Amino acid sequence: MRRVIIDTDTAGDDTIALLTALHHFKVEGVTITGGNVEFQQEVENALYTIQVFQPNYKVPVYKGHERSILSAGKDSHRTVEDVHGKDGMGDSFFEKASQRPEAEHAVDFIVRTVKASPGEIELLAIAPLTNIAMAIKKDPSIVKDIPHIYIMGGTNNSLGNITAAAEYNFWVDPEAARIVLHAGIPITMVGWDMCTKYSVMTDEDHQEIASLGTSRSDFFMDINQVVMRFNPSIHKINGTTHPDTLLVAVAAHEELMVEASSYYVDIEIKGELTRGYCFVDMNNRSGKAPNVRVCEAVDRRAFKDKLIDVLSSGS
Amino acid sequence: MRRVIIDTDTAGDDTIALLTALHHFKVEGVTITGGNVEFQQEVENALYTIQVFQPNYKVPVYKGHERSILSAGKDSHRTVEDVHGKDGMGDSFFEKASQRPEAEHAVDFIVRTVKASPGEIELLAIAPLTNIAMAIKKDPSIVKDIPHIYIMGGTNNSLGNITAAAEYNFWVDPEAARIVLHAGIPITMVGWDMCTKYSVMTDEDHQEIASLGTSRSDFFMDINQVVMRFNPSIHKINGTTHPDTLLVAVAAHEELMVEASSYYVDIEIKGELTRGYCFVDMNNRSGKAPNVRVCEAVDRRAFKDKLIDVLSSGS
Amino acid sequence: MRRVIIDTDTAGDDTIALLTALHHFKVEGVTITGGNVEFQQEVENALYTIQVFQPNYKVPVYKGHERSILSAGKDSHRTVEDVHGKDGMGDSFFEKASQRPEAEHAVDFIVRTVKASPGEIELLAIAPLTNIAMAIKKDPSIVKDIPHIYIMGGTNNSLGNITAAAEYNFWVDPEAARIVLHAGIPITMVGWDMCTKYSVMTDEDHQEIASLGTSRSDFFMDINQVVMRFNPSIHKINGTTHPDTLLVAVAAHEELMVEASSYYVDIEIKGELTRGYCFVDMNNRSGKAPNVRVCEAVDRRAFKDKLIDVLSSGS
Amino acid sequence: MRRVIIDTDTAGDDTIALLTALHHFKVEGVTITGGNVEFQQEVENALYTIQVFQPNYKVPVYKGHERSILSAGKDSHRTVEDVHGKDGMGDSFFEKASQRPEAEHAVDFIVRTVKASPGEIELLAIAPLTNIAMAIKKDPSIVKDIPHIYIMGGTNNSLGNITAAAEYNFWVDPEAARIVLHAGIPITMVGWDMCTKYSVMTDEDHQEIASLGTSRSDFFMDINQVVMRFNPSIHKINGTTHPDTLLVAVAAHEELMVEASSYYVDIEIKGELTRGYCFVDMNNRSGKAPNVRVCEAVDRRAFKDKLIDVLSSGS
Repeated sequence: MRRVIIDTDTAGDDTIALLTALHHFKVEGVTITGGNVEFQQEVENALYTIQVFQPNYKVPVYKGHERSILSAGKDSHRTVEDVHGKDGMGDSFFEKASQRPEAEHAVDFIVRTVKASPGEIELLAIAPLTNIAMAIKKDPSIVKDIPHIYIMGGTNNSLGNITAAAEYNFWVDPEAARIVLHAGIPITMVGWDMCTKYSVMTDEDHQEIASLGTSRSDFFMDINQVVMRFNPSIHKINGTTHPDTLLVAVAAHEELMVEASSYYVDIEIKGELTRGYCFVDMNNRSGKAPNVRVCEAVDRRAFKDKLIDVLSSGS
Repeated sequence: MRRVIIDTDTAGDDTIALLTALHHFKVEGVTITGGNVEFQQEVENALYTIQVFQPNYKVPVYKGHERSILSAGKDSHRTVEDVHGKDGMGDSFFEKASQRPEAEHAVDFIVRTVKASPGEIELLAIAPLTNIAMAIKKDPSIVKDIPHIYIMGGTNNSLGNITAAAEYNFWVDPEAARIVLHAGIPITMVGWDMCTKYSVMTDEDHQEIASLGTSRSDFFMDINQVVMRFNPSIHKINGTTHPDTLLVAVAAHEELMVEASSYYVDIEIKGELTRGYCFVDMNNRSGKAPNVRVCEAVDRRAFKDKLIDVLSSGS
Repeated sequence: MRRVIIDTDTAGDDTIALLTALHHFKVEGVTITGGNVEFQQEVENALYTIQVFQPNYKVPVYKGHERSILSAGKDSHRTVEDVHGKDGMGDSFFEKASQRPEAEHAVDFIVRTVKASPGEIELLAIAPLTNIAMAIKKDPSIVKDIPHIYIMGGTNNSLGNITAAAEYNFWVDPEAARIVLHAGIPITMVGWDMCTKYSVMTDEDHQEIASLGTSRSDFFMDINQVVMRFNPSIHKINGTTHPDTLLVAVAAHEELMVEASSYYVDIEIKGELTRGYCFVDMNNRSGKAPNVRVCEAVDRRAFKDKLIDVLSSGS
Repeated sequence: MRRVIIDTDTAGDDTIALLTALHHFKVEGVTITGGNVEFQQEVENALYTIQVFQPNYKVPVYKGHERSILSAGKDSHRTVEDVHGKDGMGDSFFEKASQRPEAEHAVDFIVRTVKASPGEIELLAIAPLTNIAMAIKKDPSIVKDIPHIYIMGGTNNSLGNITAAAEYNFWVDPEAARIVLHAGIPITMVGWDMCTKYSVMTDEDHQEIASLGTSRSDFFMDINQVVMRFNPSIHKINGTTHPDTLLVAVAAHEELMVEASSYYVDIEIKGELTRGYCFVDMNNRSGKAPNVRVCEAVDRRAFKDKLIDVLSSGS
């Protein structure tokens, strides 16, 4: 079984992605970074999700960076409770899980775990890239020891979600994204464009999922209550979006990714309108060497089948 | 007949756009701005195209700004002879037209003509927006007297052509684009994305055009010889692209534009990777009021029919 | 007598500079650019100042750009009535002069006058550089025909006045400043640092000036009433500041400039904190060739004597 | 005795600053950050300096960040062997010290030490601020536990040293400087301007120091051999410059700082010409609250006396 660390700002679809990761991988640890909702709530959401999954081994949760590299003060970070609910769980307000987070800092956990098993630990990144960037900066020698990072982030010359120009994860911490993309680690990127094209679950899909009658499918329905209403009003999308679950599914089953190309990818950190813009040099007008494999098409039906597999398992 | 000024960096498809404008509008004047190829060559290309069309009234040509607002020195401007040929005419090296350009500066011509017929002169902009921006800055009172500007430029959250992030006209003079887009004049924008989706003429189309046997169709075939080879290698497009002709056709026949929406549009002038990036706020995450009507779909078959109409006319 | 055009956003010290220019030069015309106070008020201030001077030949006044190149809308420009009074004349609210401005645009006047007498017309620039930049862009051939521009603007690695990083003239239109500095015209720059070190007139100086009893000295005292109170509170300067007068005096009497060096000078147009910052490469760490002669020390006593000369002349 | 951590990119004057810190403070540890010369050489320089001083307790050395936050790859960092010699020690090529660096990362050492003695550990920062910024980001709770940081960096509206606009430490890692300045920790900043005005040791001073005949004075003379030649050619300074020693002396003897004011200070991270520019809002045109106490004048004679005290001590 492949061994992974999953870095998440656990809210909404992060939870289903975490279920999916627990289903397909040996999850060495879950690291939390600041993003979707209040940091401490994200930690609780990860712990609760692990409890829903009931893994047969301990999955430790590590607290990492609560804010982006350049954020200063509380006000400079923007959470998105409008997307995921006040608790990031579709306003479900679940009770606290009994498992508590570890004392070790997420960055130290990442460095230690990677260095202990060089070449074995893959990273699944479904949050702003602060923790992973900081791990790379703290110990650059981990670069050669990480075989692959799967990143949910960016857009491929398509409309963003937090601004027209940018996808949320890269927008929250563009400097971190730039550090990770240029570190030299093999990267697969699944952007917001893939999510809107291939990951949407419609009302019909929701009915199918609800009818599974497992604790996981109940959980899926609960946590998606707010985004279900948000998507039509803002993104003109009728259904729930699953960028993080798609990322983890692609990592687990590369064959889901029916088209992908390697491009030079960089992040704008200086623009006025384009904070966090993901520059995907599809026509290679820059002449620079590719650094990222970019997912360009997904087998949507197979993705849904994999999701159903995960949700129908367990009690 | 609607009266227009067409502003062009005449090379390649600019010429067919100019033919189209002469066909459908009363063209008060042609103003030249620095862009595709050497400025003096652009002037000659416009004059030659007018001669090919043989209008039954004089169409004066005015020389405007040879370089973008912030360009300094010869080296800072990038022409694109690789796209359009050394002469910007598919390496046809036509002889000089007998008509010569006027002495008046393009900017003064625009201001004078607009002020002489308030509310009557529409602008067709198929080049970097330097001349039009400078006219607006020199006499801001023209803003209320220009009923509409049709602009070929930008991309609508899609891949650019001169960089992944930007379309050529906006990239050459992003400051000019910003000035024009925020001036308060009603604007319709047809971006590079519309061009690649709806304006491509394939080999089959070329055969149909060649078989028309008019001087205009011969001209069409000549000037497209270089771009025909450029497009497949760089843009993975098998055929010739007609952004400027599409813009003029849409201006002449608004019904060609089967989808359009008004959005807040702005231009990035400070980014490192995103010079000239066209921010089209499709999901209105900025909350700002729309300033541009953006073309979102074209009736491709009808566009081609209109093009054939133009090319099959005349001798 | 040397022939000059003086470009001014006439308010406060601009008026004394204008008197000084009329005293020492053949002033071909006065061009007005947007800056210190409402544009139309600046025009009136220039006309009134000419009337105070009573030149024995007509000095025409030309209206130019009311706003900086990139300004959009009324709100984006910042006038400084706090420095110069509501009317820009120390709250003197003088009556209108009988002379009216010309119809020709300032930019066209500059181009026409320079082209008519190549190598003869020097420019005195004591305002944001919008008009001069636009003249250079409209007809780049004037560059070789302008023997010299004297510019009041920037700081030489010293504290700014409108922000800590920038001097007002360069801050209002940094793009224009960049265009002018890189045009290739010989330039002498007198920065805000020279003004605070060498141009301040103290209470004692004011008494001496008041005692001259001429209409010019009365005028001097009137227009300085507001800045006299502004300087101590904001700039910790006890006295009136005369950046524009210093510039014109230096142009008229180069020997006033007891130290000057040629440096590479550029303007920041992309910073967040440093809009209009004037980069004076005194230690040539950039390795770039000098483009500006920068005034580094002034004979303060001689400057004052020249000022007294101007103010004690006339009726 | 006050307890400090000193963060240094040990080369040239850093070593004399370290001697000075060991003389006046209980140095809990020396942390090394990437800057002046090759990182490993900096580590050796710190260890060698400690050996020269012969402290009567162990002073551990911790390796921190070898590169700035946003640096990518080896090429993006600029060392300054031209200033300090190939070895950063005036080309002395001393033998290796016997003490070796600790295994713990500098950032972890800072966090651990500060948290163990809240309110007791002051920081002396004489290098790019990468380590200190990363410590603040990793554990923001240290902010309230650090009573003061003394920072050598920036310029106070004066000429920079690595560019005209910026001082080296802030220029190497402007993002780190921004993080530290806005963290909320009480800060005293001694800029490059203070160094050039008050810290220069002339040939005469050098003779006086050489005549002290201690191992420390010999060391002083050795390590200053390269900068002695660099300063006249680049900075027009006849003598050696001691920014870091001045910082530590000011920290040890606040009375050396005969003028100081609190200002709003920020760092430019987006400019083209102004990377690392230190915005010191002396005239408070921004209206923002002060965050830094800025040293504005030093008792130069007293500073020299303190330096002589340090160098004349020991064997």
